[in-house]
Amino acid sequence: MKVYLAGPDVFLRDAHEVGRRKKDICAHYGLVGLFPLDTAIGTSPVADPGTPASLQIYRDCIAMMEAADAVIANLTPFRGPSADAGTIYELGFMAARGKICAGYSNLPETYMERVDHEPLLRDGRRIHVDRDGNGVEDFGLADNLMIVHGLDACGHSIQTPESAPADRWRDLALFEKCARWIARV
Amino acid sequence: MKVYLAGPDVFLRDAHEVGRRKKDICAHYGLVGLFPLDTAIGTSPVADPGTPASLQIYRDCIAMMEAADAVIANLTPFRGPSADAGTIYELGFMAARGKICAGYSNLPETYMERVDHEPLLRDGRRIHVDRDGNGVEDFGLADNLMIVHGLDACGHSIQTPESAPADRWRDLALFEKCARWIARV
Repeated sequence: MKVYLAGPDVFLRDAHEVGRRKKDICAHYGLVGLFPLDTAIGTSPVADPGTPASLQIYRDCIAMMEAADAVIANLTPFRGPSADAGTIYELGFMAARGKICAGYSNLPETYMERVDHEPLLRDGRRIHVDRDGNGVEDFGLADNLMIVHGLDACGHSIQTPESAPADRWRDLALFEKCARWIARV
Repeated sequence: MKVYLAGPDVFLRDAHEVGRRKKDICAHYGLVGLFPLDTAIGTSPVADPGTPASLQIYRDCIAMMEAADAVIANLTPFRGPSADAGTIYELGFMAARGKICAGYSNLPETYMERVDHEPLLRDGRRIHVDRDGNGVEDFGLADNLMIVHGLDACGHSIQTPESAPADRWRDLALFEKCARWIARV
């Protein structure tokens, strides 16, 4: 079974090393991990020199997702209170394609705990708003409900730690939990 | 043609009014706009009192997306340098379902311009990193490449303004441009 390894891991300074560790864990469970950087511009055999780098990466990622049976998404918040934008897009894409979806975040807090907010009475209802006056969802979820319930619908809830690991970008305990689950599906 | 109206508009204090204006614009072009709040918990005829609110909203949104032929995503950055997480998930979902996808952002800057970054030489290559040392993509795109090229692949690039409108959450000029395009597809 092929597993697409989605996540902002590709932006880490040791991205290739993290990708190698993830692929090793996959192999341990009889899975083949597909890491985006393995076909990214420059190393891809299908790279077209006339195509902008970003477009080539997009096409490579789509091709990898189409080839994969499953995805493990690293949903650890990245540059904001939510997961990485590209990773979220890919998770929605894979869910709609009917692939097996699993995901984890290495932060224990709920989405709401990561957003500055204050309580407010509006139309007789007690709600929470951010500093711009926009509603903050108070559902006790790790991230936006589409992400969290999209994973629930696939049969394996988002994995989060009881406390943040020492290195949120390189601790793969929850990644391994997802791989183990996929291997048994 | 039914158009799913994705975006963080649902979190605005005047969400229903913004949704109504979007549906009016859709109607002007012969489209039926489906606004998430119209079936959200409390107003949905299929709401099950035993189901958690967030799960009911998820199911309603999925049902609306399945019923829609197209999506117009409000990709204006929300609580970070990228678009709203739920909106991104839905855009990936709709793209994978082969629906007509359009989207706009009411901020003119590129993703890179919104992220604190500095240049760095790594492995002989000049790259840009954020304050955590993670790579920042220098592609001149409005957001993550999966979002931007996912829209390109659908035939209508992400719409951005030359300068930010006075009210980024209520200016619907670019939304209307997307609706006009969809009506002609």
